[in-house]
Amino acid sequence: MRMSKWIIENGTFITMDESNPLVKGYLVVEDDKIVYVGEEAPEGSEQITDKVDGRRLLFMPGLVNTHGHAAMSLLRGYSDDQNLQVWLQDKMWPMEAKFTAADVKWGTALAVIEMLKSGTTAFVDMYDRMDEVAKVVEQAGLRGVLMRGAIGLCPPEVQKEKLAEAVSFAKDWRGAADGRITTMMSPHAPYTCPPAFIEQFVQAAHDLDLPMHTHMSETAAEVEQNVRDYGCRPVEHLDKLGMFSRPSFVAHGVHLTDEEIALLAERGVGVSHNPASNLKLASGVARVPELLRAGVTVSLGTDSAASNNNLDLFDEIRLAALIHKGAGFDPTVVPAAEALRMATVYGARTIGQGDKLGVLKPGMKADLIALDTDQPHFYPQSDMVSHLVYSASGRDVAHVWVDGRQVVKGGKCTLLDEERIKYEAQQCFERLLNG
Amino acid sequence: MRMSKWIIENGTFITMDESNPLVKGYLVVEDDKIVYVGEEAPEGSEQITDKVDGRRLLFMPGLVNTHGHAAMSLLRGYSDDQNLQVWLQDKMWPMEAKFTAADVKWGTALAVIEMLKSGTTAFVDMYDRMDEVAKVVEQAGLRGVLMRGAIGLCPPEVQKEKLAEAVSFAKDWRGAADGRITTMMSPHAPYTCPPAFIEQFVQAAHDLDLPMHTHMSETAAEVEQNVRDYGCRPVEHLDKLGMFSRPSFVAHGVHLTDEEIALLAERGVGVSHNPASNLKLASGVARVPELLRAGVTVSLGTDSAASNNNLDLFDEIRLAALIHKGAGFDPTVVPAAEALRMATVYGARTIGQGDKLGVLKPGMKADLIALDTDQPHFYPQSDMVSHLVYSASGRDVAHVWVDGRQVVKGGKCTLLDEERIKYEAQQCFERLLNG
Repeated sequence: MRMSKWIIENGTFITMDESNPLVKGYLVVEDDKIVYVGEEAPEGSEQITDKVDGRRLLFMPGLVNTHGHAAMSLLRGYSDDQNLQVWLQDKMWPMEAKFTAADVKWGTALAVIEMLKSGTTAFVDMYDRMDEVAKVVEQAGLRGVLMRGAIGLCPPEVQKEKLAEAVSFAKDWRGAADGRITTMMSPHAPYTCPPAFIEQFVQAAHDLDLPMHTHMSETAAEVEQNVRDYGCRPVEHLDKLGMFSRPSFVAHGVHLTDEEIALLAERGVGVSHNPASNLKLASGVARVPELLRAGVTVSLGTDSAASNNNLDLFDEIRLAALIHKGAGFDPTVVPAAEALRMATVYGARTIGQGDKLGVLKPGMKADLIALDTDQPHFYPQSDMVSHLVYSASGRDVAHVWVDGRQVVKGGKCTLLDEERIKYEAQQCFERLLNG
Repeated sequence: MRMSKWIIENGTFITMDESNPLVKGYLVVEDDKIVYVGEEAPEGSEQITDKVDGRRLLFMPGLVNTHGHAAMSLLRGYSDDQNLQVWLQDKMWPMEAKFTAADVKWGTALAVIEMLKSGTTAFVDMYDRMDEVAKVVEQAGLRGVLMRGAIGLCPPEVQKEKLAEAVSFAKDWRGAADGRITTMMSPHAPYTCPPAFIEQFVQAAHDLDLPMHTHMSETAAEVEQNVRDYGCRPVEHLDKLGMFSRPSFVAHGVHLTDEEIALLAERGVGVSHNPASNLKLASGVARVPELLRAGVTVSLGTDSAASNNNLDLFDEIRLAALIHKGAGFDPTVVPAAEALRMATVYGARTIGQGDKLGVLKPGMKADLIALDTDQPHFYPQSDMVSHLVYSASGRDVAHVWVDGRQVVKGGKCTLLDEERIKYEAQQCFERLLNG
């Protein structure tokens, strides 16, 4: 472990700490942790030689992206404005079937530099060839919550292979990269996994003591199919299969009844809200105000760059704050501070790291980002939480630290070769297109 | 008039010219006009000494923001997540009542630097103390479509003053700043202007041969009120008052019946779609796919920074492409290219300058912007129209030219003192807050 101590001076800190939300002053990091946040210079601070000048910068916790498929950034812009079936079956699946390990590696790396530069310090990734993803995370310096997502519409021996792969990946990589990598068990979705296959994942999650994640109720059609096939809606279905007996969260949750929302709240199941993807694929508008009101932990995900088409979580924050007002004719729902919590505090809680991430206060991991607020869209400098939600963009992020280590400096990744990654990703895409 | 000739070499141009949409090559500007766009170097190009290296840049027409109130950027973040009446009556109006000429000047300047830096080269502004706005536009080098917006809920003598002010402003400033300033006549809205007052504006517009602009059908409540007060909905009401006998366009148009959409199309009335503002104030989701299908010219506006809260038109482009898919459960509506046309070609047409702006081709004004596309969110470099709509942000804009003159260079305004403007805007806000 590196040993280091450094200080941010004269900064403005949106801490996300309810008891101390806005601090103008100092933050001290020792090794991987925050040890001080306050208005006054801490004792002995004059002996800290490693200083960051915080003027003209706004600091906040690193963002947590709770749903995505990083490698699919290779397919950004490859298919837009199409019906879901055309998009998925005619465009995505044939291209993904051609993905090699190199494609997953460079596609993930492309996604990771985009996420890092726009302020995301932890991301959930569900894909295959996850060893490649884990290696990128290890090198990039950010946090990854990684899982081999398994579709079960295949012969029993292939199902078995996938489960074995999911289990060995989850065991091999849990706690890797100084704990920056955690793992989960993830059957892809109720409509792509037979019940027995889901139960095998639940059992494995119990055996390994791991949390679970899946897609759920993204479209009205899959909910109807669930009712047809299994005689109940997806929440009840997954609950019966035991999934919610594990710490777990679902992606999308667009089509939910009041009863389903109540059951999710009762079971402590989180929902990763993916507003851009849900809009772009015309899945609908999730019932976020109702979920929040019921006490469900709602976090934010970008989904993949193939259905978004960017991985800037500030875009999702703004969409989350805007669309539920318009859709429900109520301008008071999802206020700015709540949208920001979804991307920080609630995101950290969703991935089971609410005790370590999402808030700037002593004892928490030093995962933080700094935005250049000396730009017209941050003026007048009044309610900075409002500006972060309604005006900011990931392009405003200047610096990013994870575990106390600077991974983005002046807008550039410090540990990754951005030029190489852009070049290789382009080559991968062209090979997939012509291959 | 300055005499100059310069060339962009090795650029990628999204021209918005249907017959020649994507050009990789050259663009030549002579004085205020584009004189060449093509793959091959034009004859005699070696003699042009003033060259722009177009590599790693994507060029497109400057964006047209067709609805806003620039000076209100002083109130960015001053009131969010409130019911419309609280926002307007308890927050906006009392602060605006305190606005001095200096507030309008610095508020507008703040808005203008934000717009310029994010790629907007022409904007519609409806406010008062418009001389201050016009002077900022003159200096800033961009285009302004300016009008004194008049609320008619006041005694006849005040009405008369406002009309006289609107008329004299429109006469004094039309064609000013080398034609960069045009003017319109603008009663504020049917619900804030008695019919006779609107008719006086229509008459003045006829007399001066000017187009017209107003707010219309932003909220369900104002439509209901219109029906109660005048026995018909706003479109029919304004049509009866003669407004649509002038070239005209309305802001918002959220609550429209099929019949109203048909009448707008028949009369050639444009609609400025303001998605962020409509969502944030919970007004609803405009029927944009139906408007486009009916042949109505739909453009994009930010509205003011008090209800958005930014003036980045790329945000509106993305919202326009996303929200109608989700709201209508149809992923094929408002495809990327159409959303981009709304901010360029249709915007230019809306302000009556479709013959001069919105397309990069010989004979058009040299109003163009360059985005730095050497960033991860533009990779793989495949469908750049998709990337502009679904991935780009105004922060990606590196250079901006209006009338062939560079007004933003490397992300900095060339003709305005940004530091001074941010400082003065902050002072104005604090004085308003404490005054």
